[in-house]
Amino acid sequence: MEIYESLRTNDMPFLRSAIRESRYQGHTAGLALGFLQANLVILPETYALDFMRFCQRNPKPCPLVGVSETGNPFMTTLGHDLDIRCDIPSYFVYRDGAVVQEIDNIKDLWRDDFVSFALGCSFTFENALTQAGIPIWHLVHNKTVPMYRSSIKTREAGPFGGEMVVTLRAVDADQVDEVVSISKRFPMAHGGPVHIGDPSDIGINDIRQPDWGDSPPPLEGKTAMFWACGVTPQNAIMRAKLPISISHAPGNMLITDIDDQAEVPVLAF
Amino acid sequence: MEIYESLRTNDMPFLRSAIRESRYQGHTAGLALGFLQANLVILPETYALDFMRFCQRNPKPCPLVGVSETGNPFMTTLGHDLDIRCDIPSYFVYRDGAVVQEIDNIKDLWRDDFVSFALGCSFTFENALTQAGIPIWHLVHNKTVPMYRSSIKTREAGPFGGEMVVTLRAVDADQVDEVVSISKRFPMAHGGPVHIGDPSDIGINDIRQPDWGDSPPPLEGKTAMFWACGVTPQNAIMRAKLPISISHAPGNMLITDIDDQAEVPVLAF
Repeated sequence: MEIYESLRTNDMPFLRSAIRESRYQGHTAGLALGFLQANLVILPETYALDFMRFCQRNPKPCPLVGVSETGNPFMTTLGHDLDIRCDIPSYFVYRDGAVVQEIDNIKDLWRDDFVSFALGCSFTFENALTQAGIPIWHLVHNKTVPMYRSSIKTREAGPFGGEMVVTLRAVDADQVDEVVSISKRFPMAHGGPVHIGDPSDIGINDIRQPDWGDSPPPLEGKTAMFWACGVTPQNAIMRAKLPISISHAPGNMLITDIDDQAEVPVLAF
Repeated sequence: MEIYESLRTNDMPFLRSAIRESRYQGHTAGLALGFLQANLVILPETYALDFMRFCQRNPKPCPLVGVSETGNPFMTTLGHDLDIRCDIPSYFVYRDGAVVQEIDNIKDLWRDDFVSFALGCSFTFENALTQAGIPIWHLVHNKTVPMYRSSIKTREAGPFGGEMVVTLRAVDADQVDEVVSISKRFPMAHGGPVHIGDPSDIGINDIRQPDWGDSPPPLEGKTAMFWACGVTPQNAIMRAKLPISISHAPGNMLITDIDDQAEVPVLAF
């Protein structure tokens, strides 16, 4: 944890070099506060148009904040020197629909036909909720947000489809309206909730048993709120059984140079 | 104008059949109030990935609200029965960078490799401004919004690039903050302004001589505000000199079934 604490800084060159040189592997929550963090998906170009359509049709789970040139590992609209092959703490490699490897850089796997996609993540609106004085259980207790495969169907595009993965945040009933209003201000970070109330309405039968992340405490006295989750595209990619694709390891996000309050996720020239 | 007045309705089947059967050709401002209207771009699939990248990198001029399957003329995420070949009052056909034809349907031109893109338009935030009691000169006087080719560069993607086209709306100085705030609420309708104040800062040397649309009145006592314009992608397409592409004729927008206050531009199942 010593290295994690030293990285709780906005000194981006320092932070990026620690990640690039593999001195830090781990989650990026709490790092580079004020900068946009993103989910990563890398695919061969032959799947890129359908994947972009999938993101456009499912903007809540898949808010597209950046797309690279084909074969170019630098994402120039998101960072001044952002090398997608090594600027994420840890990567998952998928082959034929399964995770086959976790790795700290993908330089040996890079191909001239790869296209990289960055998708917004919930850190942005969670920071805004915290600043508004609304306590978020998993942040307060240093846990991972509970994630569930819901019965909400995504809109298909080519080989991509399947159920939407959702995250849970439970709040006091009198905070629901404010939480909706704050999260809607961040369309690039999943926007407003996709469901409020009874988990079984969206196919979640045991709230204590998430499919990913930590088990939440009992919900008594709280209102359950569910947001579209950035794991949805990974689920869609596994389901599509692509010969190869790459994502960030869960929680090990791409840290961009974009102000997380920026109206659009594109660096000024 | 008689037919236009009869179409000022929210009876979508009536409105759509009048357009589909070519009984109405003309601008769609003021029609189907409360429904999202959109700019249209149709391209061969070979250019589609780069065009989507161009839109992602330039979300203010090119807010992507829908993308079709390749070769499928129905845009199912935007309408229950929306045939892109005939549901726009009038189309422009471009070949090698120039407009060569204006036509009321494109059934004879349709190709199996065409991909259709719908991009949000300013009607949405103009309606919101009007409802907030802020007078917009070109609406009050039944004119076309003045448009200018600015010196603001777009972010390139493949063959697409060039200058951003902007629209002008001039308001009283004490309304500027409210106008910014209202327009920012509509990221799918060009969002907040790209410039406020001296037109020459963005390369506009004679405000009385717009490149498209009507000449505005003198700006004395008003503050000039400029927004990214949906003509920008047409400018980029002409500049790219594609062998063929198709757009709506200016002002003759695609009328969708999407509520223009919807958080995301995707029909519920």
